[in-house]
Formats: sequence, structure tokens, C-alpha cells
Amino acid sequence: MNMAKPITRLRDERVTLAHGGGGKAMRDLITEVFTDVFAPPGDEDQARLTHPAITEPGAQLAFTTDSFVVTPVEFPGGDIGKIAVCGTVNDLVVGGARPLWLSASFIIEEGCEVALLRRIVASMKVEADKAGVQIVTGDTKVVGKGSADKVFVTTSGVGVIPAGRHLAADQVRPGDVAIVNGVLGDHGAAILAARGDMALSADIQSDCQGLGHLIEAALKAAPGIRAARDATRGGVASALNEIADAAGVAIEIDETALPLRPEVRGMCEILGLDPLYLANEGTLVLFAPPDQADAAIAAMRATDAGRDAVAIGTVGKGRAGLVTMRTLFGGSRVVDMLVGEQLPRIC
Amino acid sequence: MNMAKPITRLRDERVTLAHGGGGKAMRDLITEVFTDVFAPPGDEDQARLTHPAITEPGAQLAFTTDSFVVTPVEFPGGDIGKIAVCGTVNDLVVGGARPLWLSASFIIEEGCEVALLRRIVASMKVEADKAGVQIVTGDTKVVGKGSADKVFVTTSGVGVIPAGRHLAADQVRPGDVAIVNGVLGDHGAAILAARGDMALSADIQSDCQGLGHLIEAALKAAPGIRAARDATRGGVASALNEIADAAGVAIEIDETALPLRPEVRGMCEILGLDPLYLANEGTLVLFAPPDQADAAIAAMRATDAGRDAVAIGTVGKGRAGLVTMRTLFGGSRVVDMLVGEQLPRIC
Repeated sequence: MNMAKPITRLRDERVTLAHGGGGKAMRDLITEVFTDVFAPPGDEDQARLTHPAITEPGAQLAFTTDSFVVTPVEFPGGDIGKIAVCGTVNDLVVGGARPLWLSASFIIEEGCEVALLRRIVASMKVEADKAGVQIVTGDTKVVGKGSADKVFVTTSGVGVIPAGRHLAADQVRPGDVAIVNGVLGDHGAAILAARGDMALSADIQSDCQGLGHLIEAALKAAPGIRAARDATRGGVASALNEIADAAGVAIEIDETALPLRPEVRGMCEILGLDPLYLANEGTLVLFAPPDQADAAIAAMRATDAGRDAVAIGTVGKGRAGLVTMRTLFGGSRVVDMLVGEQLPRIC
Repeated sequence: MNMAKPITRLRDERVTLAHGGGGKAMRDLITEVFTDVFAPPGDEDQARLTHPAITEPGAQLAFTTDSFVVTPVEFPGGDIGKIAVCGTVNDLVVGGARPLWLSASFIIEEGCEVALLRRIVASMKVEADKAGVQIVTGDTKVVGKGSADKVFVTTSGVGVIPAGRHLAADQVRPGDVAIVNGVLGDHGAAILAARGDMALSADIQSDCQGLGHLIEAALKAAPGIRAARDATRGGVASALNEIADAAGVAIEIDETALPLRPEVRGMCEILGLDPLYLANEGTLVLFAPPDQADAAIAAMRATDAGRDAVAIGTVGKGRAGLVTMRTLFGGSRVVDMLVGEQLPRIC
């Protein structure tokens, strides 16, 4: 990203192809909309970074990326910028990493309002500050009208996993307790309602939030936590299936234990959706050994993002990779991975 | 990125919205098209990485990102995958970094051919291997038909700048020599010809290539090199203007010295384009102190990417930020930053 000083002030209300051309207009857009807010270090083509945690013996770098194409780009509880920062932060912290730096790259449709970009960037800055990360490098591209949909954001994140921490799906063992930090499906339900296709007037906010402070609190109280996954696309069902598959264990969850907002439960009943597959953007599943599960839940409940933390199931010795649910009526059913799409462009 | 084992083999010839939904179809697409080729380490949501160079005293991490939206996605001399890897590698190496790891995130339009994705991924793997980097993490999103144009790729790169290296635009001093590694404008001209709008039949290949080996060779022969910039969007003119601005110096280039392919010169004359503003994807401009310029050029010429390396100008004491060119006819003209767009979606 070129972060040279602006020559003129940005007067345009909408983005044009010239803003992606590599010349003055691009420089003005980048400076005024992006770097004035993110305040990245230096003005070279690459951020140059040091942090003492990286050089500690046994530390590992964590590196992740996600593109965000959510529609609508602004929705109750967040926008594409908030989700881009929280999503990438969460992909780092579920591995036990301390997030340090983010990159942010924008693909902008010609005609996109500059004011919308400013709101997205402001959201990103707020969430980055909350998570203690710095947005240090970025890029903008502009494509013609109809070649993208308003704006797509890709964030990558670099963090550091301290020595001795080893959260991994294959560490999960029979007897472990599966814990979620809060109600399920709010993000998926909020997006569905926001699209307006369904004529639903539910007042549901996305759960979009960073989970770094929650995980650090849980790990402090329960250092034996085995693994964590944020339950984004594909919902809690997909996260559980990934863990069961990687660990070669069976997982049984309890339908009566699933925390669901009445509005989300109602929307799922009306539309025939299964809340286990609804996307979340600030909800994770973690696995704690049985003797540390209560401590983990108590520590999570003491954080903003974990007030509704609850155990939803346990790891058993059944068929490797199988996830089942004890239903409200006392039966048992298989919770498979999502087949087909539930909601396109959910994140 | 979830890298769990595939349940079924991918039978689809085209990408559908289900491939972005977080379920089985997405897992199959990711495994078979992406991770089988890239072979990233581990199967967690974030890559976990160590490298001895990072922990050496005085080393800095380099971190950069770029989104690629080039159209057509396949063109003479490359494709969007090659450009995505080379572009991000080059953004690292122009800062003196040794590139280590890349992320790759794909926004795919519904209906995109799986075979096209496979070709793009194969290109990325080839270029990553050449540059000595590993693609360690990634993401895929799918958007509906008409909400993107085939496929957009965002790469981020992490590298390490060894202790004692300080390439930066503000290090450039009066007397320094401006050197390019090869002919100018091939990428821009190749894309323009490939679009077919102009009924031009020029046989011009993009210069798309990684520049890591070239820079290492130049730095070995001329350790005093001050700065380097790859001359992508906005061309050599924009790179020179950025340097002149950051260093507070004047730069004078010599039109007779500019290396141009006859086909590119001809295309520029027919279309009224200025080759100084045509994009390059494997061409850089670097600044060496006068006593090391010849050594730098000789070392560059000994590499594949630098066979046509040549001095194009010098840094003077004129007005800070001003770039001028001595023309073929003995006059002098200002080489300003690009105003407006020259070619949209060039990279």
C-alpha cells in the first residue's frame, strides 16, 4: 500500500475506476479513507514489524486469512468491516494465538459510496482496537459496475502462539466436555432477517464479536482446554463434525442444553432451518477435560462474550467422527455436516 | 481453512453456491482443488509456523497483501494465480525481505469452471516453488452469478528482513542511479492486447515474474542499494514519483535509455498511451549509490529476471518530489503521477 501524502483532498462521493488505477485518485482514496484511520506504520510496500513475543523460545507464528462477501454489507449488529476484523481475529485466537497484526484488502465496485467505505473502515478500527491488533498493511482494487457487489474485504492475520500452548482438534479425548460461549445462530438469523426476503420483522442482532479476551480468560482458568473452533459457516454442527473427524472421536450433544434465543428458535421453526447449521460470528465451541469444564465455564461467564456459556455435550467412545444429538423427546439423531448451502454470502 | 479429509470426490464441473456454504461441498472443493496442491501444514483454522530467521537478533517481519482482479484471468505470460503469487512475493522482496509464507483467498463467482480454478492453483504452486515460499493458509467464498467476475484472488505474504538491511524510499540520495531490470510496459500491453477490444494482434507476453532472486543478487553485489519499488499499477512513472516524494529529491530520467519492446512502443504510439504509465508485474526500479550502480547492473544481468537491466536516470538536487525526463529531442518534461485511470483491472 502506498501511503504517501495526499496531493488533493478527496471530493468524490462515489468510487470510480480511477480510484483503482494506481495514480493520484487512488492515492487520495487510500490516504483519506484508509490510512488516515488505520495509521499503519511506515510508508513502504510492506509493513515492517517486530514484537518481543515472536522471538521467545518455543513461540509459533499463527497466520490466517478470510475473504468476506456478506450481504447486506451493513446489518443489525455489524457490517462487513466488523465481521472481517472479528473473523480473522477469531481464527487466530481459537488456536491459542495472541493476535498482533492484520492486513485488509478491499475489492470495491465502481459506484460504491465513499461514505459506506468510511463507515466500514471505522468499524474495523473499533474492532481492531478492542482486540489489541493493528491493521498494518492493505490494498484497494476497483472493478466495474456489476463485476462485484459493493465491496468485498479480505483480512489476513498474524499472531503468536506462546510456548507450551497446543490447542488442536486432534487433542480432544473421550470424556471431554463441549462448551459454547453463548446463544447459537444469531448471525445467520440476523442476516436472513436483514435481507428482507422473508418479510420477517425479527429484532435479532448478529453475534459478531472478537473472542480473544474470552479465550484468554478460559485458558487461564482451565489451561487443559484441548481445542476451540469458531462456529461460522456451517454452524455448530460443522465445527463439531470437524473436531470429531480430526480427533477420531464421537461427540454427543444434548438438544435441551442448546442455548437459543426464542426469536431464532421461532424463525427456524417458520422457515424449516436447523439452528445447529446457522452461522455465528462470535460463538465458539471449545473442549475442556472433565475436571476443568466447570472452571472454564465460570471464567467464560465472567467475560462479555461468554455470559451465556454452557456445556452442550460430551465426547464419547462411539464411532470415530460421528456427532449425535439427544433430542428433546429422548431420541437420538445424527448431526451430519451441512449438505448443500443454507445461506449464501453469510460472511 | 478447514483441511479435513474429503468424504466424496468432487464431481462438479462448475462451482455452485453450495461450494461456499461451509458444508460437505465446500470441504470437497477446498481439499481437491486447493489443499491437495498447496499442501499446507496442519489442519487447524490458522497455520502454525516457525523459522529460525525470524528469531535472529535485529530481524524484522515483513507483511503485505494485495487483491487481484485482473481481466482476462488468463493472458499471454500468466494468469491471475501467477500474478497473485508474484505480486505479493515482489511486495516483500522490494523491501529486502526473504519471503516465507503466503495466504491465498478466493472469491469465486457461481458458475466458474472448476478446471479454471485448477489451472490457477497450479500456476500459484509453480510460482510459489520458484520463489521458495509456501502457501500455508487460505479461504474460499462463492458469490452468486453476476456478483463477481469469475474469480478474484487475495494473497498476503509474510517474510523476514535480515538484520542490517534497510531498503526504504527515504534513503535515496542525490547522485544515486535509477536502474530497471528489464523492458517496460509488457504486462499492461499484454493485457490490453488480450482483451481484444483493440483488434491488436501483438504477440506480447506479460512480464509477470518473481523478483526475489534478482534482488538478492543485486544486494550481494551492491549492498548499498537504497530502495526498490516494483512498478505495477501506474507504471514506472508512479514508482519514481513515490520515491521522489518520500525521499524529497528530484529524479531525472533519460528517454533514450528506457528499454521498450518495439511492439510495446508501437502499441503505445497507435493508442496514444505513455509506456511510463503501463503496468508491469515483474519489473522494478531500484536506486543504487553511484559507486555501486555498475555492480548492481552487472549482477542483475546475470539473473533471468534482469537480463535487460539498465540505468534509466539519476537523482538530482532539483525540486523535491519532481520527476522529469530528458526527451529524445533534447527537451525536458515533467513525469507526473498518473491522473485518472489508464487500464482498469490490470492486476
